[in-house]
Amino acid sequence: MQRKILLNENEIPESWYNVVADMPNKPLPPLHPGTKEPIGPDMLAPLFPMELIKQEVSQEKWVGIPEEVRDLYKLWRPTPLYRAYNLEKALDTPAKIYYKYEGVSPAGSHKPNTAIPQAYYNAKEGVKRITTETGAGQWGTALSFACELFGIDCEVFMVKVSYEQKPYRKMVMNTYGAKVHPSPTNLTNAGRSILAQDPNSPGSLGIAISEAVEVAASDDNTKYALGSVLNHVLLHQTVIGLEAIKQMEKAGDMPDIVIAPFGGGSNFAGISFPFLRLNFDEGKKIRCIAVEPASCPKLTRGQFRYDFGDSVGMTPLIPMYTLGHNFVPSPIHAGGLRYHGAGAIVSQLLKDGLIEAQSQQQNRCFEAGLQFARTEGIIPAPEATHGIATAIDEALKCRESGESKTILFNLCGHAHFDMAAYEAYLSGKLVDQEITSEEIAASLATLDTPVPA
Amino acid sequence: MQRKILLNENEIPESWYNVVADMPNKPLPPLHPGTKEPIGPDMLAPLFPMELIKQEVSQEKWVGIPEEVRDLYKLWRPTPLYRAYNLEKALDTPAKIYYKYEGVSPAGSHKPNTAIPQAYYNAKEGVKRITTETGAGQWGTALSFACELFGIDCEVFMVKVSYEQKPYRKMVMNTYGAKVHPSPTNLTNAGRSILAQDPNSPGSLGIAISEAVEVAASDDNTKYALGSVLNHVLLHQTVIGLEAIKQMEKAGDMPDIVIAPFGGGSNFAGISFPFLRLNFDEGKKIRCIAVEPASCPKLTRGQFRYDFGDSVGMTPLIPMYTLGHNFVPSPIHAGGLRYHGAGAIVSQLLKDGLIEAQSQQQNRCFEAGLQFARTEGIIPAPEATHGIATAIDEALKCRESGESKTILFNLCGHAHFDMAAYEAYLSGKLVDQEITSEEIAASLATLDTPVPA
Repeated sequence: MQRKILLNENEIPESWYNVVADMPNKPLPPLHPGTKEPIGPDMLAPLFPMELIKQEVSQEKWVGIPEEVRDLYKLWRPTPLYRAYNLEKALDTPAKIYYKYEGVSPAGSHKPNTAIPQAYYNAKEGVKRITTETGAGQWGTALSFACELFGIDCEVFMVKVSYEQKPYRKMVMNTYGAKVHPSPTNLTNAGRSILAQDPNSPGSLGIAISEAVEVAASDDNTKYALGSVLNHVLLHQTVIGLEAIKQMEKAGDMPDIVIAPFGGGSNFAGISFPFLRLNFDEGKKIRCIAVEPASCPKLTRGQFRYDFGDSVGMTPLIPMYTLGHNFVPSPIHAGGLRYHGAGAIVSQLLKDGLIEAQSQQQNRCFEAGLQFARTEGIIPAPEATHGIATAIDEALKCRESGESKTILFNLCGHAHFDMAAYEAYLSGKLVDQEITSEEIAASLATLDTPVPA
Repeated sequence: MQRKILLNENEIPESWYNVVADMPNKPLPPLHPGTKEPIGPDMLAPLFPMELIKQEVSQEKWVGIPEEVRDLYKLWRPTPLYRAYNLEKALDTPAKIYYKYEGVSPAGSHKPNTAIPQAYYNAKEGVKRITTETGAGQWGTALSFACELFGIDCEVFMVKVSYEQKPYRKMVMNTYGAKVHPSPTNLTNAGRSILAQDPNSPGSLGIAISEAVEVAASDDNTKYALGSVLNHVLLHQTVIGLEAIKQMEKAGDMPDIVIAPFGGGSNFAGISFPFLRLNFDEGKKIRCIAVEPASCPKLTRGQFRYDFGDSVGMTPLIPMYTLGHNFVPSPIHAGGLRYHGAGAIVSQLLKDGLIEAQSQQQNRCFEAGLQFARTEGIIPAPEATHGIATAIDEALKCRESGESKTILFNLCGHAHFDMAAYEAYLSGKLVDQEITSEEIAASLATLDTPVPA
């Protein structure tokens, strides 16, 4: 039996796929946070290099991957596509289960797929320093690694409570040469004002974004980088699905269902958009399912409207499924999925019924993650277990119905820095959380942002 | 440029290579710890399944790999061979540097190469439970993973101080379904006697071995497993070098120098023995260099004589380079290299001048590890940094001489569970340790074991 389908380095895609080109309804434009008028690319220039801004608003179907970026992708790409024979056997299912494994990257997740090109375009435009925020630490790790390769200084504002709970993540970033600050800091106006109110503030992703943006905006040689949500980030991640299509073809198979966890959208977009193209171009009917945590259900229970990308309200207003930017998700272990909104492209696709969304409870996710580790060997990141739980659900449906569907999911990373989550699950300490409709309504009621027609 | 040379799953070797068949002087036989007479295979039967005992004493050149083992190897094998272009550029060297990366295994190191076949042979002979010891945790992790795949219970006696310092390692083993005990325990006579003397004993590898062996010897359904030193363990690891030869051939190249870290010998044997075969069979002159920590210099400064494998003196006497089984290495971060002896095969090869040995200081190793991480991306395990330091030394010699040698080293694992070591290095807290000749002589003077002629 063949467990892995590999590609050679010369099969790394030469272009990223831009799903916007094929969307029947394009994403609505972002609005200025003050005037609430549509904003142009120039407003983003203090924060991002021009080439990334062009990609952010591009409607071209294919965007060429620079040769230098393809060459650095070779440090870990193409990533393997696995047939999960051991898991199939344990489930006694006629379904065929495949997974694309992105945890082979040096940073341990799919995040370097966009960190490398972001660092590349910044370096090309002479940027000397990049700031960013990180919560669980996956994004900060990937950007530190990418900046080191291009000789750019990297400064990461890490939510203080994570900084203290996950010291190994900080050490990884330091090893790649990045400076890591526990946010809120005394380095910015935003941080100082928070500390003045609460010297013991544990920080939040919203505060960390404010600090990173403030530093970038106030220095000509410094730009800011984001690891999900934005269009250009999703674009870069499509190398995952483009490779997966080639690998499924080599396996003589094609998925009926494509599954990925959903936080800000980069993981889901990465694997599913290239398969959506097959739906658009070739009339295939591949189901693409985004899986979010039940404790942060913006896709399944949120509202489609304009909202801020951050908690503080500094960013442009983005048309998206949201729980409201004041919504505070419970502290689940899948830190990468604790985000109130969904990004413009994915939200429009969901609104138009071109993709699906489901939610999973935390204990069910770790049950699935444990079964996966004990059959396939890799211990999946808490975020990744969400996709596995839904893949197992679909495989068990096949056992009931006798159908032999082909299921593909994206295994976005390993859990080497998240083992405390498995310890909590194994010792029965994990709590599932039911969000009431009243709580969601109350959070949305705090918004005074436009609701698209 | 091609960074990675990959193999397909059907290129996983079909046999392991047994270097004993080609050795001009065979290893001397092990001796009974009491009578000091040579022992036969039957004395090992309470601890190991018969098939592994046969491999332990085999003089056959090739030992077939069972199809079930080859199939499970496919969960991560063949492992990639990398050309370290970024590192070469940073060193400005005409040398060509290659590395074989074993950290892609689910357990994160080369250890599953032997854990899988050991679990397989035990399962085939009806064994229900395997005990072992672990220090740093790499071996315990690999055996837990392998036992889970074969439905065998796994009990790991983990040195208590490591159990407390490295909680993530324990959690990984638990995730794979193993029971992990902080040793010394109250479960064994050996443990109880230690605790009676010192209730707060931090434990040691020697004590943990005694506990694991005692449990295995006292239950017919339980056997014991070891992760290095023994001949059958080294045999299983030769898949590394056998794959590497195929990959070097695909690259149109062949190493002048093969380098690996040295603890008990499994890592070094795994990559180098198949290249030694080319020296024996084809008259090549490939230099094979074992790199040990300067704080535990058995190969470079030890004595060739019979000594115990454990600290307590329960195991057979093995002919080896040793610092004496009472030697206590300083607590360096490369825990996997803190072992007083060297195993029979490697020791005989070194005595006969067929391999070389060098030592490296801790700070130099982490300097090399950091340079590697910042160029190639992968953060190497503390053990692995020893091989990198010597590879860099050889590449810098090439810069001096203008020679373009081909250097291959084994990158045996990543540092995801050892990041505190990098933190210590980056903050200037790592200490190098000089061992005096008097200290070594004093340790060796405690031995009353035979010195081979």
